[in-house]
Amino acid sequence: MFATADVPMRFANLSFDPTALASAYSRKHHGRFVAELGEFIRFPSISAQPQHKGDTQRCAAWLTDHLKKIGMERVAVIPTSGHPVVYAEHCHAAGKPMVLIYGHYDVQPAEPLSEWRSAPFEPVIRGDDLYGRGASDDKGQLFTHVKALEALLRGGQGLPVNIKCLFEGEEEIGSPSLPDFMIANRQLLAADCAVISDTQIPAAGQPAITYALRGSINFELEITGQKRELHSGVLGGAIHNPLQALCEMIAQLHDQAGRIAIPGFYDRVRRWDMKERAYMKRVGPSDEKILQDAGAAMGWGERNYSLYERTTIRPTITVTAMHGGYQGSGVKAAIPTHAVAKLNFRLVPDQDPQEIDRLFREYVEQITPPGLRLRVRTFASSRPVLIGRSHPAVMAAAHAYRQGFGTAPVFLRNGGTIPVVGLIQEILHLPVVLMGFGLPDDRIHGSNEKFHLPNFFNGIETSIRFLTAMGQSQHASLVRRDNSQQIRNTGTFWGP
Amino acid sequence: MFATADVPMRFANLSFDPTALASAYSRKHHGRFVAELGEFIRFPSISAQPQHKGDTQRCAAWLTDHLKKIGMERVAVIPTSGHPVVYAEHCHAAGKPMVLIYGHYDVQPAEPLSEWRSAPFEPVIRGDDLYGRGASDDKGQLFTHVKALEALLRGGQGLPVNIKCLFEGEEEIGSPSLPDFMIANRQLLAADCAVISDTQIPAAGQPAITYALRGSINFELEITGQKRELHSGVLGGAIHNPLQALCEMIAQLHDQAGRIAIPGFYDRVRRWDMKERAYMKRVGPSDEKILQDAGAAMGWGERNYSLYERTTIRPTITVTAMHGGYQGSGVKAAIPTHAVAKLNFRLVPDQDPQEIDRLFREYVEQITPPGLRLRVRTFASSRPVLIGRSHPAVMAAAHAYRQGFGTAPVFLRNGGTIPVVGLIQEILHLPVVLMGFGLPDDRIHGSNEKFHLPNFFNGIETSIRFLTAMGQSQHASLVRRDNSQQIRNTGTFWGP
Repeated sequence: MFATADVPMRFANLSFDPTALASAYSRKHHGRFVAELGEFIRFPSISAQPQHKGDTQRCAAWLTDHLKKIGMERVAVIPTSGHPVVYAEHCHAAGKPMVLIYGHYDVQPAEPLSEWRSAPFEPVIRGDDLYGRGASDDKGQLFTHVKALEALLRGGQGLPVNIKCLFEGEEEIGSPSLPDFMIANRQLLAADCAVISDTQIPAAGQPAITYALRGSINFELEITGQKRELHSGVLGGAIHNPLQALCEMIAQLHDQAGRIAIPGFYDRVRRWDMKERAYMKRVGPSDEKILQDAGAAMGWGERNYSLYERTTIRPTITVTAMHGGYQGSGVKAAIPTHAVAKLNFRLVPDQDPQEIDRLFREYVEQITPPGLRLRVRTFASSRPVLIGRSHPAVMAAAHAYRQGFGTAPVFLRNGGTIPVVGLIQEILHLPVVLMGFGLPDDRIHGSNEKFHLPNFFNGIETSIRFLTAMGQSQHASLVRRDNSQQIRNTGTFWGP
Repeated sequence: MFATADVPMRFANLSFDPTALASAYSRKHHGRFVAELGEFIRFPSISAQPQHKGDTQRCAAWLTDHLKKIGMERVAVIPTSGHPVVYAEHCHAAGKPMVLIYGHYDVQPAEPLSEWRSAPFEPVIRGDDLYGRGASDDKGQLFTHVKALEALLRGGQGLPVNIKCLFEGEEEIGSPSLPDFMIANRQLLAADCAVISDTQIPAAGQPAITYALRGSINFELEITGQKRELHSGVLGGAIHNPLQALCEMIAQLHDQAGRIAIPGFYDRVRRWDMKERAYMKRVGPSDEKILQDAGAAMGWGERNYSLYERTTIRPTITVTAMHGGYQGSGVKAAIPTHAVAKLNFRLVPDQDPQEIDRLFREYVEQITPPGLRLRVRTFASSRPVLIGRSHPAVMAAAHAYRQGFGTAPVFLRNGGTIPVVGLIQEILHLPVVLMGFGLPDDRIHGSNEKFHLPNFFNGIETSIRFLTAMGQSQHASLVRRDNSQQIRNTGTFWGP
């Protein structure tokens, strides 16, 4: 089961490998590491649900205790206006680079509970996978680095670089407190590069470094009609129905070709050249692979783009929720007074969330039927992100993956959004390495989320190798030189 | 406050008025009658909600006790496959007609509770109105006849006709058990005519007899997509969304002109001549009145028809409920696995519910996007109803209204559905008199439902007069002659 983790060892000269002791320590403690990850998952740290505020705080406290136990320093739960940040550091590698490890200990809601094979917050192992909400996103991936730190501190020769950990509790609600926290703590968070493991790799045998993320903006639309519910017999056909109107408005968000119908929506969408699209086609997942991973019968969306392209270089709108009218059993024959829909937009370079906000509001205002009132709420927006593929820290990650997984990583785009990447780029001016350990069938955000345990173990190995590589002088000096270059999320893109 | 009830008395010769004693008894006990109606309303007899099954049974038991107390005979709670029927009779008026009084003791759900000024099942009087779920639909209107029976039995000269009471507990869910009950109990329910008070009059000073009702058919549509929720970032834009698809399908139910787009839907819709439409325009509510009663800013619907026509002689579809995706607070960035909508159709002569069922299923099947699965459930269908305006029992009702409310009634169509009317016509072959005491602003099916107490009192007076008129020989004989004519809901319509 753990054979993959041993692959790089066969090619390494143990007497000269500075990671050998830490790796051996890690392998020895795999069982305990999994049990500890299980403890971490048990906290229902659902940031979106106010009733889980206490659980989220208890989860932060547990993580803090754990970081202290493995030897991290200045460990603290730092309050924000929302859920707290967990901070830790270990800064005794004089002259070596400073690596900021970001992760999030909050998770998505687990509903609908009936669709889980085992309870979301009672983690269980089935086959090679650990099941539970947050197992992959992001507790398992965050914990991969924590265990690498433990292996280096407790079993190896100490940390080869300086480390700061920033583990937030609001990623799943769009990191609302993080910008202020970062602005107020620029000095505390100063580093040479950041590493984040909150993405996927195509398969357990094919690691990947993510170099592009979509941006995001969320809306809640509410249509309100007459003041009170009206009998659908007595008045049906004479008074407009907010629920019908909302359906008709949502139907007008896309045209017949699957393109978004908001005027001006595509004006700033970057057109990629054939070289880039050919690279994407070569290393990215096929339509068949994407459908198979999704468990979907067929694809959908904008014509003339592959499914991988539709989810990465093309913007999209997803209706994530809707409700209106009587929600109980049976029939209530009434015209509802209002209807609500939640929309999740994903944006691509060089779309600007603020501009999209304005364009969307103008459009829905215009298509709201007369006599009905529209209310639009915007929340949790993030800019799309691009990361240079030739940055030395990215190169160090590629080297580490080759050793941790036994094969070279590919460079992939991801359709998701990690708001913190843009924030780290814009506020802390750090290069970001997106070193994923999740798999496409991990069902993050869905029911029966899981983390593939071989990826956990190979990931610990990869993290050990990455930090060690960063500590080696040629990397360190390159890192330092490069930090003067500010990598902006709308800035220059370096080819592969 | 009760002056209106006294109006007819000024024109009557008390020494020859056979209703005088019963009327006096009623007026004397108005206070107690309201208190008793309050007790009746306190039962949350919500037939649609399984958790209120016990309340519905307790309500039936209370009504049974009450009927015994006022002197009715053979009083019984008769079980059905659903909620029970309450039966009572009083058959000692030899040679006089038999009148079947129908009402329903079940009520609509009360949600959303937050929109009620006072709790729905804690009736209170504000101004001249009694507030509570079912106050008007149909507990208050049913109770009007019960109190008329009490006045005749306890305060008057006994019942001038033979009476059977049929009070069901499933009207608000489409009377599913009633057809079988009627077929099995044709002898028990045999009568000369039926009277139902479950409709509205235009204003407290303008009584009305309803001569047309729309039919009804309810559907639940469910669209199912991929097996599990998918991350709207990772897969948004590549996989179809059941919620978006359902919105687009609902948007295709109406065309730009507000007409229903289902092929063949209007094929059997009867076209009314100018004479009938002119009568409707003369006696029916204006657009302004309908909007004012509805509390709506503006009308909507099919072009070239008044709002009154749109709600009575034109069929309609109302989306009564919809839900899909994450229903908790905040955002869950996932493509939902399925979406559900509930639709309430109202049908007009000569549409056939079974044919509409087939046409609708064919259409939604055709517009379901490929790759998504459609499930359609049909429930609670009723045929549209027409009642001859020149029938002697209807004439007796018109006479009674003139005395009870001091003014002649108009003949109105109602956009609602009372499934039992079609059943009484088709199974029991009885003429039906729809003698309404509700008002347009009673908010039936909505929040803050109320019953206008002057209508309660005038209604008792009208019921006393109606039963008395039916007992008078010239009416009785006409009734008997007419019963040989079967009035079918799709049969001949007699002009005003």
